[in-house]
Amino acid sequence: MESSSALALSQLPYYIYPTIPNTNKNYPFWPAGKRRSSQLPTRLHCNKMFVPGFGEASPEAKAAKNLHNFFTYIAVKIVAAQLESYNPEAYEELMEFVGRHPLNDGDKFCATMFRESSRHKNLALRIMEVRSSYCQNDFEWDNLKSLAFKMVTESNTRLMRDYISETSRAETEK
Amino acid sequence: MESSSALALSQLPYYIYPTIPNTNKNYPFWPAGKRRSSQLPTRLHCNKMFVPGFGEASPEAKAAKNLHNFFTYIAVKIVAAQLESYNPEAYEELMEFVGRHPLNDGDKFCATMFRESSRHKNLALRIMEVRSSYCQNDFEWDNLKSLAFKMVTESNTRLMRDYISETSRAETEK
Repeated sequence: MESSSALALSQLPYYIYPTIPNTNKNYPFWPAGKRRSSQLPTRLHCNKMFVPGFGEASPEAKAAKNLHNFFTYIAVKIVAAQLESYNPEAYEELMEFVGRHPLNDGDKFCATMFRESSRHKNLALRIMEVRSSYCQNDFEWDNLKSLAFKMVTESNTRLMRDYISETSRAETEK
Repeated sequence: MESSSALALSQLPYYIYPTIPNTNKNYPFWPAGKRRSSQLPTRLHCNKMFVPGFGEASPEAKAAKNLHNFFTYIAVKIVAAQLESYNPEAYEELMEFVGRHPLNDGDKFCATMFRESSRHKNLALRIMEVRSSYCQNDFEWDNLKSLAFKMVTESNTRLMRDYISETSRAETEK
């Protein structure tokens, strides 16, 4: 059985960012004062770059929302892998439900599953428990940060190197 | 001018997760040993839940890849907001390019921009510099973590409360 292939690409969470027009046009370099920060108030006066178009929310809140949907997707995969071996019936029921309902909005997915049947309610409760546990215990937040740092540095270097080697080759061929 | 509205929803980064079949079906509770971890080797023997379908990569790497595309999107918004006030020509050029090229793959977007013209190359270099700086200095990683923790706890509570209040109301109406 293809335990994971039933989670089709089209059903996976995707980014939705607001496209609210920049309402602070007169202050393009003003730090994003509306951003909720976990840091000290003095940070609000730092030289952070202004990010327009997020209204009352923040880039961090948008990224957290997308991670939240990602964690629901991960939780469905974890629960499916667990059920497959010792409860094939529940596994089939879960995969059948996943086939019928998109997973891009994790909360909507769980809310619908809750109301499907009492067996589905138990599955939804389990998925909710697993996503909470995964987010708080299993997901490697420090690893995420260091991978993102590494990715941006390596990507920038590669893009520049590729461009330089292309133009050098073109120069040589002249 | 609607500085942000030109960044249409369809052009924004979206999640792409692999749907590789679970090849460790016999060990559904085996910790994800293939995950690259920034932590000590002893962590590999902990009781982490098995997440199937990520092959050689890890959920953290997938999340980092998506954040990487998100940072490129943010960088384009930052650069556009900066240019709008003091270099309307470059701003128009940037927005025209954004209108023609999707932003869902940040690296591909920058690579194409690099090769468009020498002016576009400078814009691409600026976007790359800004995304690196934003990722390493401006983005609030601790805030992201605490917002995600809060979101999963509040969502789970709300989903259960809504269901209970619905069923209680149905019971009362009987």
